[in-house]
Amino acid sequence: MSIKLDLTTAGNPDLSGYQALVTQIHQKIQSKTGTGSDYLGWSTWPFDYDKTEFNKVKALAKTIQEKAEVLVVCGIGGSYLGTRAALEMIQGLYPSRKLDIVFLGNTFSSTYIVQALDRIKDKNVYVNVISKSGTTTETAMAFRLLKQFLETKYGKEEAKKRIIATTDKARGTLKTFADKEGYATLTIPDDIGGRYSVLTSVGLLPIAAAGIDIDAMMEGAKQAANDCMSDDLETNTAYQYAVMRRLLEKEGKSVELLVSYESQMAMVAEWWKQLFGESEGKENKGLFPASVNFSTDLHSMGQFVQEGKKILFETLLLVKKPMLDMTFPEDIDNLDSMNYLSGKTLSEVNLAAMKGTLIAHHDEAGIPNMILTLDDFSAKSFGYMAQWFFTACGMSVYMLNVNPFNQPGVEVYKKNMFKLLGKI
Amino acid sequence: MSIKLDLTTAGNPDLSGYQALVTQIHQKIQSKTGTGSDYLGWSTWPFDYDKTEFNKVKALAKTIQEKAEVLVVCGIGGSYLGTRAALEMIQGLYPSRKLDIVFLGNTFSSTYIVQALDRIKDKNVYVNVISKSGTTTETAMAFRLLKQFLETKYGKEEAKKRIIATTDKARGTLKTFADKEGYATLTIPDDIGGRYSVLTSVGLLPIAAAGIDIDAMMEGAKQAANDCMSDDLETNTAYQYAVMRRLLEKEGKSVELLVSYESQMAMVAEWWKQLFGESEGKENKGLFPASVNFSTDLHSMGQFVQEGKKILFETLLLVKKPMLDMTFPEDIDNLDSMNYLSGKTLSEVNLAAMKGTLIAHHDEAGIPNMILTLDDFSAKSFGYMAQWFFTACGMSVYMLNVNPFNQPGVEVYKKNMFKLLGKI
Repeated sequence: MSIKLDLTTAGNPDLSGYQALVTQIHQKIQSKTGTGSDYLGWSTWPFDYDKTEFNKVKALAKTIQEKAEVLVVCGIGGSYLGTRAALEMIQGLYPSRKLDIVFLGNTFSSTYIVQALDRIKDKNVYVNVISKSGTTTETAMAFRLLKQFLETKYGKEEAKKRIIATTDKARGTLKTFADKEGYATLTIPDDIGGRYSVLTSVGLLPIAAAGIDIDAMMEGAKQAANDCMSDDLETNTAYQYAVMRRLLEKEGKSVELLVSYESQMAMVAEWWKQLFGESEGKENKGLFPASVNFSTDLHSMGQFVQEGKKILFETLLLVKKPMLDMTFPEDIDNLDSMNYLSGKTLSEVNLAAMKGTLIAHHDEAGIPNMILTLDDFSAKSFGYMAQWFFTACGMSVYMLNVNPFNQPGVEVYKKNMFKLLGKI
Repeated sequence: MSIKLDLTTAGNPDLSGYQALVTQIHQKIQSKTGTGSDYLGWSTWPFDYDKTEFNKVKALAKTIQEKAEVLVVCGIGGSYLGTRAALEMIQGLYPSRKLDIVFLGNTFSSTYIVQALDRIKDKNVYVNVISKSGTTTETAMAFRLLKQFLETKYGKEEAKKRIIATTDKARGTLKTFADKEGYATLTIPDDIGGRYSVLTSVGLLPIAAAGIDIDAMMEGAKQAANDCMSDDLETNTAYQYAVMRRLLEKEGKSVELLVSYESQMAMVAEWWKQLFGESEGKENKGLFPASVNFSTDLHSMGQFVQEGKKILFETLLLVKKPMLDMTFPEDIDNLDSMNYLSGKTLSEVNLAAMKGTLIAHHDEAGIPNMILTLDDFSAKSFGYMAQWFFTACGMSVYMLNVNPFNQPGVEVYKKNMFKLLGKI
């Protein structure tokens, strides 16, 4: 289990000049000092997460699996993206599991909300509402609609048994609400921010309810935390990636394009965009995070990458072993002239597309390409990847001299919106 | 029916200095002269599309609606994105229609392909394969798998009745293939490229099969073509948008961020990214096209937009009338403190989020915002929007002195891939 990082097609520069800076930041992270250090909980989480809480997650997940046809996950941002990324990466876009998982609380879009409520109306439904404060408007509105839906359908008492609130351990609107109503509650740790929270109860409950092995996921995270323990730039791939991003930025790149070659990785890219964009997009700094899913998007964004304005570099997020595969069959008539691929697996062809694209983009168009390779689509790999990206992100953003753990800019639209809505 | 364009929050510059250039390009487009003019068919398409073909589309769509549980749309790029954009925009993400539509032929991802084939295996299936040449690898591979699936399930004769090939009118691998097998065929016009093809049989068959009114769609397109007939920059909003993009680029912006506030617009943004990115990403030129879906992505990309590196401008694609709506209910206990929103519709709250964000991004962060407003989510509006964007794209890219209608860069990865796969 590891993430391999290949910098050959990214110029393969000597990074040793950054060792002193990396060591200095590494010590700040390890000792939990420095800007934003109140939110460094993720750095030791795979070692010190609360095992009692973890078992509570498993028990609740089991109840949901036994009793529900639909689990509604009601949350936004970090309370939405990590879960969806894990589900899709580990189980694919057309998963075979019985439990339908519907996301709400992540939009004001009236059509989406009405259609989602309609989709679940005749089903056996459980709800997991996720909000640290309980005042996030999108989530609070959807939760009220879901609560009334459950109460109408099941009555007030039964509805209470079908709601699980993941929230602050002691304070806040949702915690008070949940205690008063008697919902089961799970805890969002004080020292882990939304975009770093997928390995806490925030992500673990819906992920476990989907039938995914969360023990393996935490095991993967622990392995990544161990692998990233050293500040040595020769061996710590997360730090190599962190430094390379800054180097490419210095060379004038302003967009980082996360590239995957499997459809089930699209939401991982969305999760990654929040992690990096929200961590470093401050003080007029940061790389603009964008993503594509090849080969699909080679037929839309491929032209721009190949010949458009040279403002980007690519970070390939590859996965060695596909979740499912098949051999491309022979056809006697060969009317489509595709027999030259017969006997090859689809994943072999996908690999050739990746290699051909790498030559096109790097060798021919001169676009720097970093290559990250994961072992497989397992829960363990997801956990490893999440922890590895947290570590890389913390380092990379600290190198910009920016607090990687706050998000002051997210409040600005809210303030204006509340004013327009007459909230006192 | 119209697209309103508000440039107030984009600096509202005097565009009249560009009138002469716009007039010159306009004449080139109208007279179908100039670079790439072989592919200017879209400019008069809403007036001169083939009515016999159109009726054939309707008849085939009716057969699919009557007989199929699943329609597999097998295509990539322009043979995929436009259809999916129309379906989602007009019918939402959880549509109430009976026909399930599954996309294949748009990826080499083995897990996606295996899972999609598994999803349809016990269903009553029709297939629409879409490829001008028939040699696009992703599509040809998936089509062979689908053909063998249908033949195994239904026998060779019945399988033939369940396949519709949308392809070149006379030449190419797929046309020859289809004629030999006796498939029903539809025609991709010679003078309309992939990313401009959603209003041809490419998009119209699956869109009509989904139960969408394609007469209304073409009517909308016709109205847009009429509205864009004049070269007057005072009145032609498509040309205003085209010019503003170039102005903002000159001011140093390198990313155009298409912003929508309804979940069902996410694929329209993907379609738009192909249209603009593939049209202008040439000769080291072009704006990098990116997209966000607010308010969802305010909780991921919002921080970067608000306070990150100032490399982008926003193009808001708003829709005045929501497809579905509901009133936010009162709650006696008000434990969530959300009663201040009771009696408001969800779309009113969404509008407040939009206005609050506009103030945050434009007034407070200084980010230029162009605002496009569509009337509604109807088929007619989709048709209008598609034709309007084609017109804007043609103008905007010609202003860069680039051919808007070719895509030489897309061939590079293919060439390398074929070499790796041993294709002769």
